Amino acid sequence: MTKAIVLGGSRGIGKAISDSLKSINCDVFATSKEDIDTSNLELVKKFLDAHKETDILVLNTGGPKAKEFSDVTENDWSKYHNQLFVGFCLILQKIKINEGGYIFLISSSVIKEPNPKLIISSAYRAAFSEVLKILSKDYAQKNISCINIAPGPMNTDRTKELIENIDEYKKTLPMGRLGEPEEIGNFVKSIIENNIKYLSGVVINFDGANSNYVF
Amino acid sequence: MTKAIVLGGSRGIGKAISDSLKSINCDVFATSKEDIDTSNLELVKKFLDAHKETDILVLNTGGPKAKEFSDVTENDWSKYHNQLFVGFCLILQKIKINEGGYIFLISSSVIKEPNPKLIISSAYRAAFSEVLKILSKDYAQKNISCINIAPGPMNTDRTKELIENIDEYKKTLPMGRLGEPEEIGNFVKSIIENNIKYLSGVVINFDGANSNYVF
Amino acid sequence: MTKAIVLGGSRGIGKAISDSLKSINCDVFATSKEDIDTSNLELVKKFLDAHKETDILVLNTGGPKAKEFSDVTENDWSKYHNQLFVGFCLILQKIKINEGGYIFLISSSVIKEPNPKLIISSAYRAAFSEVLKILSKDYAQKNISCINIAPGPMNTDRTKELIENIDEYKKTLPMGRLGEPEEIGNFVKSIIENNIKYLSGVVINFDGANSNYVF
Amino acid sequence: MTKAIVLGGSRGIGKAISDSLKSINCDVFATSKEDIDTSNLELVKKFLDAHKETDILVLNTGGPKAKEFSDVTENDWSKYHNQLFVGFCLILQKIKINEGGYIFLISSSVIKEPNPKLIISSAYRAAFSEVLKILSKDYAQKNISCINIAPGPMNTDRTKELIENIDEYKKTLPMGRLGEPEEIGNFVKSIIENNIKYLSGVVINFDGANSNYVF
Repeated sequence: MTKAIVLGGSRGIGKAISDSLKSINCDVFATSKEDIDTSNLELVKKFLDAHKETDILVLNTGGPKAKEFSDVTENDWSKYHNQLFVGFCLILQKIKINEGGYIFLISSSVIKEPNPKLIISSAYRAAFSEVLKILSKDYAQKNISCINIAPGPMNTDRTKELIENIDEYKKTLPMGRLGEPEEIGNFVKSIIENNIKYLSGVVINFDGANSNYVF
Repeated sequence: MTKAIVLGGSRGIGKAISDSLKSINCDVFATSKEDIDTSNLELVKKFLDAHKETDILVLNTGGPKAKEFSDVTENDWSKYHNQLFVGFCLILQKIKINEGGYIFLISSSVIKEPNPKLIISSAYRAAFSEVLKILSKDYAQKNISCINIAPGPMNTDRTKELIENIDEYKKTLPMGRLGEPEEIGNFVKSIIENNIKYLSGVVINFDGANSNYVF
Repeated sequence: MTKAIVLGGSRGIGKAISDSLKSINCDVFATSKEDIDTSNLELVKKFLDAHKETDILVLNTGGPKAKEFSDVTENDWSKYHNQLFVGFCLILQKIKINEGGYIFLISSSVIKEPNPKLIISSAYRAAFSEVLKILSKDYAQKNISCINIAPGPMNTDRTKELIENIDEYKKTLPMGRLGEPEEIGNFVKSIIENNIKYLSGVVINFDGANSNYVF
Repeated sequence: MTKAIVLGGSRGIGKAISDSLKSINCDVFATSKEDIDTSNLELVKKFLDAHKETDILVLNTGGPKAKEFSDVTENDWSKYHNQLFVGFCLILQKIKINEGGYIFLISSSVIKEPNPKLIISSAYRAAFSEVLKILSKDYAQKNISCINIAPGPMNTDRTKELIENIDEYKKTLPMGRLGEPEEIGNFVKSIIENNIKYLSGVVINFDGANSNYVF
C-alpha cells in the first residue's frame, strides 16, 4: 500500500490533498500542528525518529501573518526560516523517499511574483524552491518526482485572513473566483494515480491565469 | 458528450493525448496532415469552415528538422511561422471553445531553454506561448483553461530523428530515460477528468528534471 | 574608429543611443525608414549589400499600433513578422560583427509580461529574443557581446500613442515617471566605453521597478 | 560628495566596485570582515549605529564553501541565513538611503540556475533577491534604484577555491574566460556616473553568455 505523509494535512490545501490521496487508497498520515510543527526543529527531529520513510511526501505549511518589511523582527525571520525552510531541509536530509515516490511542495505564487505583505513567505518559499530544484536531479535517479505547486489565491482560511473584502477581490481575478483546494488535491491525486513521473523539477503555478509573466 | 480536437493526433504526443481522451469517452477528432496542416493557411481556413466549435482543443504540431541559424532560409521562416504560429492564431481567432472548455498547447522545453539546432522551433513556439498567455485571461472569464505543456526529451520519432545516439543521450538525462507520450496523455486526461480549471495561463515544463533554471 | 549601425536611429530610443555613441566618437550610421525598413525584406537585402560589417549593431524598430488579438489580420502577422523578426534574422545572417563588437537588441518588457494590446509585439519580440540568446553563445567565441534591453514605459512618441492619459498613467508607475530614452542611450554608451564584455546573453529589463516577477 | 558603503569591499568584486567608485570621487567606505560581518547580527547592529545613511549601498558578501545538501548542518543554515539574508535585511531596515541613491546587490547566477554544490548560496541569495525586488517599488518613490547583479563565473579567489582545474573550466565557457571583477566595477560605476535611474527592480545576469534560459 502506498504510504503518504501530508504535512499541514488537517486543513486547507493539505487536507484536500490528504482526502484525495485517501480516495485512491493511500495510507495517509495527515499531520496537524500537534504531530509536527516545522518551526520547532526539535519536534521535527522527533517526528523523523518516528517516520523514517514514505512513498509520497507533501511539504506544506501555512505562512506567517501579513507583515510589512519594516515590521519584521529578528524573531520572525528566525521562526519562519525554520518553519518554511530549515524544517523542510531537515526532513529531506533524513527521511527516505521510496523508489518511484513523489515529493510535492506546496509553495506559493509569491515565489515568482513576490508580495510586499508576504515578504517572509516570498523569501523563504523561494529559498526552499531552490533546494527542491537542486535535489530533483538526484531524486530523479531513483525515479522520485519532485513537483513544486505554487498556488495563487485559494479558497482557504488563510486567504480570508489576508484579504479584507473577498467578494471585491474575486472580481479582480481572471476567473472571478478563488481556486478550490480540491483542485490541487485532485491534481496531486491524478499525477500519482496515473503514475506520471516525468513531471519533475518543475514549478507549477496554480493561479487561475492570474500571473502576468509568460514563463 | 465532450468534444475534443487534437491537432497532430495521429502520432507521438498528439496520439497519446487522443487515446487518453477517448478512454474517458470524449468524442475525439484526432487530425492528421490530411485533415489540417497548419503550415497551409488555406487548409486551416477550410478546416475552420467544417469545425466551428469544440470543448477541448489541443494545439500540437511537429517542428522543423534541425537546422543551424546560418542555414535557415526565408522559406523556412515563412513556412514554420505559419505552421507553428499563424495557423494556431487563425484557429483561436475563429473556433469557438465552449464554456468550461480547455485549450492545451504542446510547445517544447526549448521555449525557455532555446536550442541552437531548434532555433526555428524555439522562436515560434515562444511567440505562440506569448499569445496563449495573453488570451488565457480572456478565456478565464468563460471558465476556459489554457495550459501550455512544454515537453523535454520525449520518446517520439522526432527525438530519434534529432538525436544520433539515443542510448548515450539517455544516460545524460536525470531520469536515465526519455519521457513517454502516455505520461503527457494521462496528464491531459486527468486534468479534464477531474475538472481542474484553476490551472491556467501556465507553462508546465515536462522534462524529467532536466532543466536547470529554478523557475 | 568604432563603427556603429543603429536601426531606427532617427527618433526615440534609437536616436538617444545614436547620440550617446556619437559622444564617444563612434562612427554612427543612424538609419531612418528611408535607409532600411525591416518590414521590407528586399530593402533589408539592399541595405546589407551596402553595409557588410560593423563593430556595434543596435537592432531597434518600432512596433505595430495597439490591436486586440481578434483584430489582427494575416497581413499584420506577415508584415510585423518581417519587421520584428525576419528582417533582424537576415541582418544577423549576413552582416559581419567585428571581433570585440556588440549587438544590442531593443526589445520590450512585454516579452516577459505580454500585453493584450501589444500582442504582435509581445510575440515577435519574444521570438527574436530566443534567436539572440542562442546566437550569443557563438558570438561569445569572437568576444562579441549580445545584450537584450527590454524597455518598460518610456518617454517616447510611441508611448504617447498607446496611452491615453499619460499623466494619470505616470501615477501608477513606481517612479512616478516614464523612462527617458537618454537613460538607455547612456547605458549602452557606458557598456561600450568601459569595454564591458562579460554582460552577454542577457535580457535587461529597463522599467523603473515596474515589473512584478522576481526574475 | 557622494557617499558609498561597499560591503565586502576589501577583495574580489567588492574591491573592484569600491575602486571604480573612488575613481569617480565617491567617498567610499569599503568594509572588511573587521568592520562588518553580516553573519554576526550584533556586529551588524553596531555597524548600523555608526553608519546611519548613505547614497550608495553595495550589499556584497562571500558565500559558504561548497557543500552537498546532505552535509549541511543546522549551524550552516543558521550562520549563512544571517550572513546572506538577515544581516542584509537588518541593514535595509535601519540604514537611510538618501534620495536619488542606489542599492546594488551582488548575488549570483545560481539564484536562477541553482548549483548543487552551492545549495546554501542558491537558497539564501534567492531569498534576499525576493526582498530586494519587493522593496524596489518603495525605494522607487524616493528615486532610489535597486539593482541585483548576478555574477556567473568570475576571476576571484572564490572561484579558484570552488573549481579544481580552472584552465579546463574556462574552455567550457562561451567566452573562454572568467569574468573580471573590474567589468562589474565599471558597470556599477557607469550607472552611477550617468545617473541611470530607470534600471531598477531588475536582476542582471553577468555571466558571459553562460546561462541557458532565455529570460
